[in-house]
Amino acid sequence: MLAFAKGHGTLNDFVCFSDPDGALEFSDDQLRMLCDRRAGIGGDGTLRAVRARHVAGYQDYGDAWFMDYRNADASIAEMCGNGLRVFLRFLLEEGLIDRDPIEVVTRAGVRAGQFLDDGEIRVGMGVPTTAEDLVRVVAGGHSFEASVIDVGNPHATVMLPPGELDGIDLSTEPVYPAEVYPNRANVEFFEPSGPRHVRMRVWERGVGETCSCGTGTVAVAVAAARAAGERTGTWRVEPPGGSLRVELTEHEALLTGPAVIVARGMVNL
Amino acid sequence: MLAFAKGHGTLNDFVCFSDPDGALEFSDDQLRMLCDRRAGIGGDGTLRAVRARHVAGYQDYGDAWFMDYRNADASIAEMCGNGLRVFLRFLLEEGLIDRDPIEVVTRAGVRAGQFLDDGEIRVGMGVPTTAEDLVRVVAGGHSFEASVIDVGNPHATVMLPPGELDGIDLSTEPVYPAEVYPNRANVEFFEPSGPRHVRMRVWERGVGETCSCGTGTVAVAVAAARAAGERTGTWRVEPPGGSLRVELTEHEALLTGPAVIVARGMVNL
Repeated sequence: MLAFAKGHGTLNDFVCFSDPDGALEFSDDQLRMLCDRRAGIGGDGTLRAVRARHVAGYQDYGDAWFMDYRNADASIAEMCGNGLRVFLRFLLEEGLIDRDPIEVVTRAGVRAGQFLDDGEIRVGMGVPTTAEDLVRVVAGGHSFEASVIDVGNPHATVMLPPGELDGIDLSTEPVYPAEVYPNRANVEFFEPSGPRHVRMRVWERGVGETCSCGTGTVAVAVAAARAAGERTGTWRVEPPGGSLRVELTEHEALLTGPAVIVARGMVNL
Repeated sequence: MLAFAKGHGTLNDFVCFSDPDGALEFSDDQLRMLCDRRAGIGGDGTLRAVRARHVAGYQDYGDAWFMDYRNADASIAEMCGNGLRVFLRFLLEEGLIDRDPIEVVTRAGVRAGQFLDDGEIRVGMGVPTTAEDLVRVVAGGHSFEASVIDVGNPHATVMLPPGELDGIDLSTEPVYPAEVYPNRANVEFFEPSGPRHVRMRVWERGVGETCSCGTGTVAVAVAAARAAGERTGTWRVEPPGGSLRVELTEHEALLTGPAVIVARGMVNL
């Protein structure tokens, strides 16, 4: 039996559990079972809260909380903006932290988190980088120009004229140049819907079209800003699963959005 | 906050909760939220355990447990063989019944349940009826002869030669004569895999291809027995989600299979 919580951020959902002393050893099959939507709890991944001192390679961070994020297939994932907000909400509701700004250790480095007065959570997303050259992406038989953006993971991001987003065919994986993306890419399409306000859809590598993708949201804001001739500024970005705010500063990107714990209980493993 | 349990029978999964006195009034939105696999717990439906005396139209059954089964879209469903087993497991684990044989009230009538020594649960599925004439079903551009079977709900059931089941195209709904099925049909395909042993796939009306369907399993056993020139006997039926046993007696059909509670906890509504 394992005590768990189930939460989501813009419908990106996770099974969370705490393991302060790093005492829990789950097999990949057990982690997959937790994420199985019929045989288990169901989620896009698991989030284990463990003190960094108990994680190989991160002992120097001592009592800081380490976000041990695994995908639904039990593979290791470096970072997830929506997952990080859910992780912070989980830590808070479990009484493992208080509402002060906090730093969390992830496999992509230390990330800042802050609980805002309106109930949303702001997290640091690191420093996105953009390649000079555009690439071509093909979806549904149509070809588009895409920005090559790295947000800790690789993105191909396409800006569309208003009104074209819903017509994009994402029933199959878009095609992009393999030599630019040796580890494959997440592909975003977005269209303007107001001043510094865009709507987006996303194909996540290895998953398919999804409701939301935290790093994809940041990539879209970076591409939208670039198209507007800006490097900094605050963007409202709306994936199908909800609404997020991306602040581009001189130093890094910040992602703000909701994160809720829906249920908690005990699960048989 | 609602106390819930999540369980499944051959991967047909349900959110269960008890409401002995009929005091809980949930909106359709709340029931849908419980079944939402990202924003809620997730399930093919909800199972509310309420004493029959508190259910309009069923007061005469007094303290018997009524299975208030709703589909994931909150629509009312009459019966579900896999759901009934999960419901009995839930009642047992909640301490609401003991291991003795029990009768449960459903919208399809009173159904018997029995906990077997091997851990499986046997439930009564009523009296299936078969129409004399066959109908034609078209799937993936191919036409098949189907038996017209009623198991409280309507089925079109196709027997295939060995080796053909996996090749059937169930990516879209099979076509069947609307005049025979004014309320649409569940469509099963099955092939023999041993003595009184068949494998099956199922298209559930309003859902699509599913892992398992209790009444569909019974319909397959009835069609298989008919093809063998038999009316009674015990059949092993294997949908993608697991393995079930169907006993056809002179009086009714009995369905035996696993049912497990995976998790329990509290959910925010």
